[in-house]
Amino acid sequence: MRLVTYDDGRAGVLRGDRVVDLGGRTMLDVITGGIPGGVPEAAGTPLDRVRLRAPVLDPSKIIAAPVNYRDHQAEMSVDSQVGVLGFFLKAPSSILDPGGTVQLPYHDRRFDQEGELALVIGRTARRVGEDTALDHVFGYTGLLDITMRGGEDRSTRKSFETFTPMGPVLVTADEFGDPADVDLRCWVNGDLRQDANTRDLIWSAARLVSYASWVTTLHPGDIITTGTPAGVGPLAAGDAIRLRLSGLGPDLAVAVRADAAVASHTAGRDRGPVPPPPPVPGAAR
Amino acid sequence: MRLVTYDDGRAGVLRGDRVVDLGGRTMLDVITGGIPGGVPEAAGTPLDRVRLRAPVLDPSKIIAAPVNYRDHQAEMSVDSQVGVLGFFLKAPSSILDPGGTVQLPYHDRRFDQEGELALVIGRTARRVGEDTALDHVFGYTGLLDITMRGGEDRSTRKSFETFTPMGPVLVTADEFGDPADVDLRCWVNGDLRQDANTRDLIWSAARLVSYASWVTTLHPGDIITTGTPAGVGPLAAGDAIRLRLSGLGPDLAVAVRADAAVASHTAGRDRGPVPPPPPVPGAAR
Repeated sequence: MRLVTYDDGRAGVLRGDRVVDLGGRTMLDVITGGIPGGVPEAAGTPLDRVRLRAPVLDPSKIIAAPVNYRDHQAEMSVDSQVGVLGFFLKAPSSILDPGGTVQLPYHDRRFDQEGELALVIGRTARRVGEDTALDHVFGYTGLLDITMRGGEDRSTRKSFETFTPMGPVLVTADEFGDPADVDLRCWVNGDLRQDANTRDLIWSAARLVSYASWVTTLHPGDIITTGTPAGVGPLAAGDAIRLRLSGLGPDLAVAVRADAAVASHTAGRDRGPVPPPPPVPGAAR
Repeated sequence: MRLVTYDDGRAGVLRGDRVVDLGGRTMLDVITGGIPGGVPEAAGTPLDRVRLRAPVLDPSKIIAAPVNYRDHQAEMSVDSQVGVLGFFLKAPSSILDPGGTVQLPYHDRRFDQEGELALVIGRTARRVGEDTALDHVFGYTGLLDITMRGGEDRSTRKSFETFTPMGPVLVTADEFGDPADVDLRCWVNGDLRQDANTRDLIWSAARLVSYASWVTTLHPGDIITTGTPAGVGPLAAGDAIRLRLSGLGPDLAVAVRADAAVASHTAGRDRGPVPPPPPVPGAAR
């Protein structure tokens, strides 16, 4: 099934370009309780007449892989990757609806787009093996891990308000298929910055779920985002970001503006890796 | 007021050694809605006949200061402190009730106790100044930020299940007084490892709240923990940890055991600072 959250936070099934309401249930209701009696036969509402929201609005946590593609590790000039670093957490308050606006909080720092495949936990997972890990996944969605470069802790650099655009569609695991063969493309102002496939993940979706379940208890609705490939690059006010993942259309599109335009409150700007300029748009992957 | 969460998650007022029920309200209910009509005049239940819980069981986030005392910065041999690092996040699923048991997940890694003063947000805070930041604090409590040493991201090293013991008492801001003059003592097996005062915080409670509110939106019930002073040291199965903060008695006490006793899943063990042995028990601060 192709699911969306819309309007006041209700879940619906996407059928073509129409959204069929599920009786006011939230996505978490659907994840934990299913859809009694199956999907209603109603005609639904045209997609362009609803306000699409992030598929899950209030997960208990957002777990993210720090460096999970070799080419991104190379562009960041860092020794460490997910197998050394484990995961970091993003604040749930950073979630942004599709079509929303990323707000850059400081005028003196660099902010990058990081396009990613994310998965949504379907049932409680604690110390599960890689072989059964994906049984605990409800579905998949697109996610932009907007990031401030510098020396602050990742949780800070990635938890600013609006820094986690998600959605618009959540495709259930049964329909989505193999998370290890997903094309990922991310554009900024029409320039293709990221062009990759999840087969190049260092830790697979299954391994991420398994590892995270050994550290924490994963709850229904929790988000695990798999990390970003090469091609991260700086954002500026007025930019438009678009993320496309195969099997997860329509695209996740957000705007960028400079919000508070104050100076950074911390001195972390001179620390941490600063990646080289983004690759030439349209370059072959 | 001195508040506790107990039994099935209900809030109560602590009067001497008795707990007065507040009609089944949770702590979050009390934080957001207050106590209509004031505290009931009921006699209450003896403290030793209730099961004390963490004061807030499911905050939307736990924000923590990474290096916020100079003496802890020195013992860790790191250049960075909170003014460079900002904050990190701990998973809410790591919260442990007072009297609970910290479970060490790996047999080949070092885990330390870190005693801290924590504050509980009372009302939504977004971009508040230092001068008004504490107006958004509902109260204060004790917190142990149990930590795995090594090179993993802080969110991983500090989010293991049971790694955030909290409580037992939450003292409201009006009664608690000045968070910049709180004695903190932490013992492991009766040996005094940490002996400090919050006047030595690098970033005050007010500054932490203000900064965090510029990054994220702080919600009622959110936890901000202020960081740990010098004296962190390794834990082993069978240890008993006790944290005492002036004005916040009774002590927060937890046990330690080796839980899964498997090898670490990541290669982060050789990275990151490893502090020297803890100071001589009872040494003057």
